[in-house]
Amino acid sequence: MMRPEARLYAVTRPLYSEESFAEEHKKVYRRRKNILDHIKQYLTFDTKRTKNAALSLLPVIGWMKIYQIKEWLLSDIVSGCSTGLVAVLQGLAYCLLASLPPWYGLFSAFFPVIIYFFLGTSRHISVGPFPVLCLMIGSVVTRLVPDDGPPANITGFEGLTRDEARVLVASSVTFLVGLMQLAMGMLQVGFVVLYLSDSLVSGFTTAAAIHILVSQLKFVLGLQVPGISGILSIVYTLKIIFQKITSSNVCDVVISLVVMVVVFFVKELNDRFKSKLPVPIPIEVIMTVITCGVSFAFDFKTIYGIDVVGYIPSGYESPMAPNLHIFQETAMEAFPMAIVGFAVAFSVAKVYSVKHDYTIDGNQELIAFGVSNIFGASFKSFAASTALSRSAVQESTGGKTQVAGLLSAVLVMIVTLAIGFLLEPLPKSVLGAVVIVNLKGMLLQIRDVPSLWRRDKPDTVVWVGTCIAAIFLGLDVGLAVGLGVELLSVILRVQFPRCSVLANIKGTDIYRDRKDHIRIYEPEGVRIFKISSPIFFANIEFFRDKLIEALGFNPLRVLKKRNKALRIIKKLLKKGDLQWTSEGFLNTSFGAQKESEDESNMEELDQPIDFKDLPTRIDWNARLPANIIVPTVEIHSLVLDFAAVSFLDMSALKGLKTLLRELIRVEVDVYVVACDSYILEKLHDCCFFDDEVLPTMFFLTLHDAMLHILEKCPEPAEKKSIYEKIDTTVTVHKPTTSLRIRDKNAPDRETRF
Amino acid sequence: MMRPEARLYAVTRPLYSEESFAEEHKKVYRRRKNILDHIKQYLTFDTKRTKNAALSLLPVIGWMKIYQIKEWLLSDIVSGCSTGLVAVLQGLAYCLLASLPPWYGLFSAFFPVIIYFFLGTSRHISVGPFPVLCLMIGSVVTRLVPDDGPPANITGFEGLTRDEARVLVASSVTFLVGLMQLAMGMLQVGFVVLYLSDSLVSGFTTAAAIHILVSQLKFVLGLQVPGISGILSIVYTLKIIFQKITSSNVCDVVISLVVMVVVFFVKELNDRFKSKLPVPIPIEVIMTVITCGVSFAFDFKTIYGIDVVGYIPSGYESPMAPNLHIFQETAMEAFPMAIVGFAVAFSVAKVYSVKHDYTIDGNQELIAFGVSNIFGASFKSFAASTALSRSAVQESTGGKTQVAGLLSAVLVMIVTLAIGFLLEPLPKSVLGAVVIVNLKGMLLQIRDVPSLWRRDKPDTVVWVGTCIAAIFLGLDVGLAVGLGVELLSVILRVQFPRCSVLANIKGTDIYRDRKDHIRIYEPEGVRIFKISSPIFFANIEFFRDKLIEALGFNPLRVLKKRNKALRIIKKLLKKGDLQWTSEGFLNTSFGAQKESEDESNMEELDQPIDFKDLPTRIDWNARLPANIIVPTVEIHSLVLDFAAVSFLDMSALKGLKTLLRELIRVEVDVYVVACDSYILEKLHDCCFFDDEVLPTMFFLTLHDAMLHILEKCPEPAEKKSIYEKIDTTVTVHKPTTSLRIRDKNAPDRETRF
Repeated sequence: MMRPEARLYAVTRPLYSEESFAEEHKKVYRRRKNILDHIKQYLTFDTKRTKNAALSLLPVIGWMKIYQIKEWLLSDIVSGCSTGLVAVLQGLAYCLLASLPPWYGLFSAFFPVIIYFFLGTSRHISVGPFPVLCLMIGSVVTRLVPDDGPPANITGFEGLTRDEARVLVASSVTFLVGLMQLAMGMLQVGFVVLYLSDSLVSGFTTAAAIHILVSQLKFVLGLQVPGISGILSIVYTLKIIFQKITSSNVCDVVISLVVMVVVFFVKELNDRFKSKLPVPIPIEVIMTVITCGVSFAFDFKTIYGIDVVGYIPSGYESPMAPNLHIFQETAMEAFPMAIVGFAVAFSVAKVYSVKHDYTIDGNQELIAFGVSNIFGASFKSFAASTALSRSAVQESTGGKTQVAGLLSAVLVMIVTLAIGFLLEPLPKSVLGAVVIVNLKGMLLQIRDVPSLWRRDKPDTVVWVGTCIAAIFLGLDVGLAVGLGVELLSVILRVQFPRCSVLANIKGTDIYRDRKDHIRIYEPEGVRIFKISSPIFFANIEFFRDKLIEALGFNPLRVLKKRNKALRIIKKLLKKGDLQWTSEGFLNTSFGAQKESEDESNMEELDQPIDFKDLPTRIDWNARLPANIIVPTVEIHSLVLDFAAVSFLDMSALKGLKTLLRELIRVEVDVYVVACDSYILEKLHDCCFFDDEVLPTMFFLTLHDAMLHILEKCPEPAEKKSIYEKIDTTVTVHKPTTSLRIRDKNAPDRETRF
Repeated sequence: MMRPEARLYAVTRPLYSEESFAEEHKKVYRRRKNILDHIKQYLTFDTKRTKNAALSLLPVIGWMKIYQIKEWLLSDIVSGCSTGLVAVLQGLAYCLLASLPPWYGLFSAFFPVIIYFFLGTSRHISVGPFPVLCLMIGSVVTRLVPDDGPPANITGFEGLTRDEARVLVASSVTFLVGLMQLAMGMLQVGFVVLYLSDSLVSGFTTAAAIHILVSQLKFVLGLQVPGISGILSIVYTLKIIFQKITSSNVCDVVISLVVMVVVFFVKELNDRFKSKLPVPIPIEVIMTVITCGVSFAFDFKTIYGIDVVGYIPSGYESPMAPNLHIFQETAMEAFPMAIVGFAVAFSVAKVYSVKHDYTIDGNQELIAFGVSNIFGASFKSFAASTALSRSAVQESTGGKTQVAGLLSAVLVMIVTLAIGFLLEPLPKSVLGAVVIVNLKGMLLQIRDVPSLWRRDKPDTVVWVGTCIAAIFLGLDVGLAVGLGVELLSVILRVQFPRCSVLANIKGTDIYRDRKDHIRIYEPEGVRIFKISSPIFFANIEFFRDKLIEALGFNPLRVLKKRNKALRIIKKLLKKGDLQWTSEGFLNTSFGAQKESEDESNMEELDQPIDFKDLPTRIDWNARLPANIIVPTVEIHSLVLDFAAVSFLDMSALKGLKTLLRELIRVEVDVYVVACDSYILEKLHDCCFFDDEVLPTMFFLTLHDAMLHILEKCPEPAEKKSIYEKIDTTVTVHKPTTSLRIRDKNAPDRETRF
């Protein structure tokens, strides 16, 4: 239907070089803003902008104004209660990842939510503990306050119990994370999350899931395994678990298996009957309540010796200042936490903002999480982000705004203040089992790798690199390695671009890779070269090599050989061993044939060939006098297709100029086509042009340049068929290898092919 | 002359979409090598290749075969002697930078040269100490064995004097540098030097020059200043120097000033009369000899208390194994040394190889320097590279091959074994003065910065960033920071490309930025968008935002509004509040106007608009019944110019597909033009196409797509002038805002604009 079969593409216009085009079509003068203008604009005081900026710092005002009490409030209440139940459970469970006493997880599901209510721009995410982040905190905590052995030598640990020291570490790190996020938000660098590509995040979260799985094994099996952090910690942990596996607590294993199987199946049902269920079955909460009751009724703790949540104090603890010494010790680990926490929350928030059609602001989110974490840390909560599963509950149960989040926080508060003691008999293995079942989605990402490999190799390398590094080197180092691999993959893609030699598709103005097509037309002595990438310091040499390969000769080497030959000829002429006649050069002495190469002055062999003092120019492709041999050059015109060259840096500019000059000096006409006008301007600004490298070499399109070349150096008649429309009055000649000397004073066009 | 003024560009061919072109011009099948093939090829055993590989490991065989004894030997001898004298002096001087006793510099000018003779591919560089590298070693040495205070706690330091410990550190680091270079050479990763761009190297060496200058001040002023290493060391050193400056040794200051002034002026003369002098005047050697004699004659050491070179033992010391503990302590610092040492030597070697027309091999050079350093380190020499000034002497005095280098090493050996004691009265201030004068070229690089800024801002940022970081954070950290800034500058250039809206230049097939030209033609409802960069994870969002800005509407938002409106209309029709007549919709109840938005089902609003159950399609730009308002869309066709899109990654593919689908769903025809055939293939491989996103949207050129659009959706007659050649039989219509309903069964072409 859409195939434009018989339709015609007919164009008749003057042949344009960039110069002639610019002359005919004058450009409108546009003043470009420079950096000063931008700064001025940024600093200009403007009442309206100031007001907007102030408002954007408190997004709550914006959405509270449009709050539809009648329609939204009920949904928010239902959603808040459901989310609150999940938040309590997850708060306790993820605390195990952070190696802290469980009730601190309840703090983390309370304090940050309050602040986010006022400062956050997302209306649907459930702020609070995020398993990956908890694990990263746990790794810092066990490094500074290990299970076995004394804590690190930090001022402020004196007189603290192990758990107290751990809470101090966790909240200090959280404070630092908050400071970093706040600073990034203030500096408006929220765009850094762009660098976390899909492949990187997928590989990273898969690795995180494996870490979480391993860290929960000890609870599920009822083993005592010290928390290990640092490089290869996962291997050491697994080693200890396998050594101890025979002493697993059977009761724990049975409870975990039952919980896992039940939760798994009910979750599958939830997924399958998503559209039919008004609210997904809160199976985790149900299982928790049941096991809690069973554990209490049969006193599992004393009879089977299983590890339970244990004492939960009611009420909050007094605020605490962060420890500066811990800041110093953990700065390197806090930074990836700040990035990961924000990136996850932002990406979840974005999904919902697109779905419900409102905008979120990355920098404001950074500020919101920064302040939330700083505030939370003061009350001994640990770093908050969002958990995908909890946010899904909040949204799917009908949450419309952060009012739902606030209500979930209230529910958490009730548990903390009043009914926390009910959770004391809950076995830790249940929490571990719930965490493990929730890893399904993250672990299944590994299935995408084979298809990713078939589609895009570099992306797969990023995925696998990030995942392996994060598993074995730890999450923070792994993220850094992944980022490095990813940025390098971009550089490498740009650095080793596809280069191709193009040819005309017969009967058209279209040029394609000459290896791909048969019905092509390649005029003799013309080479069309395309580079599909910007040119910059890392690929200018590559570009040069590929071009030389395509040309079949190294212009600099040819230039030097020619200059050397010229010196010998000049010397011979001076000595009288060689004479110029109208027939060509005449050897008068045979001794001259042994003239050795003059090595003493290598300095100026790359200068333009100087025919001064010679009666004629020399046809270098012809046989030279005195048995001098220089490589022949069959190319008279080179066309460079710059359509895909989106920028040039200074190294590229320098290298390109050298290359063009060498080519021009060996009498190859160079044409640059389809060059971006911005780049052409830059070339002018950077004094790219001189006596040899002229702006006249720039043509608008490849076909324009080709027509120009064919007019200047016409092809033999039998090959001309498709170009017969062009008025070619210049006589036909073609490079030959016979000895032919042309007069030096002939017009340039004749001799310069 | 070359302006193709009146010449014509005339093309008549069928209109091509990528599909119709591919049908008419079948592609040749080319089997692409996959990774397995490459590995196979690499592992294939081949006698000839094996022989070549073996030969390339000992380049000396290659050039010894062509050694022209008669012509080259004399030059090599002359050059060897000159270079040897300079090497002795520089060996002593640069040792001061490394904070080692001076005679170890003589070792460094001897051992590495021997190995390089056999393994190196450059025939002209003078291997030996390089000031920047010496300074980096000095920084490690003073960190582990400080001037004041005890040495670091390293096994192996027991029972060593301070100088012995320092030599152990220096040679161990050198050994490690050698190992790293050897490994890089074996792994064929010599291409990493490509990442050291001109701007980076220039900024880095300028910073190094400043470090060297500061480190030599104490010798020139005759002060005792402890060596300081690490961050901000330069500030602390300067602080100490200024505190102590009043106690400068006047004799040292006078000697240094005299030496500096004389050397400076004679060097200027050397430069000016370069062509007239057979050999540059070896003023440094002359001044050294003179000052050495004067110092001995007047016993400067005891009378004026100046610091002299002092005792130089004759003969070599027994070899020594490196210390593994030092390896651990210095690994982070050895890596930048390995890179810098190789990069400098390679770039100097390249200059001479181009000049003298032979090839050098980066990976073999890495191996050569690796083995040289490992061998040298065993004999207590420190890391070797090349000094620009010394190599210039070797080449300019006529050195043809490394035979000259070998002879210079012999001269150094003679000094070590026999006449070293003659140098004992040489004041250290003379050495410092010589080093400082030689910094001129490196320091003057700072003059290029203003012009660099005018030409290329990102390159300047790299220059300044590297320089400042290297000055204040130290050379190793500075290099890493510089590399990071540089790679980021590439990413940022690609990440924030120029996007522009193009328009046709009247009367041609040329499209340019519409802001730049006046005589342009823009058909109503058509938008042409060009992105000048590859699209990948970091700029797909940027691309999306810019495109939405250019379009003037967000397709997803429009799609959702339309779907919402459709639901309301369907509900109204069902309830009978709205009826369909041949005239259009008829409101039968006014209550319907208050129909609230249905928030309950936000799920499927981004699905294609489904006109099923409706008597007609709806013209969304017309007034809708029941006071429903959706944003109007004035664009019916969007052309994306992909000429500069050199690659797409998976994130970009996903983002692009989503975007195209949204556009198609709001009835905008999308055309992609000038897409690289490699990318088109990849799109097919990655299942980019489906029922909505069709391969028929790809056109060969922008003009092809434009002609197709104009045929499909013709312009009003008065605007058509330049396209009159196209046979347009379709009737003219144009989007209006009046209420108009078209029949659902009419052909697609009619309704789909």
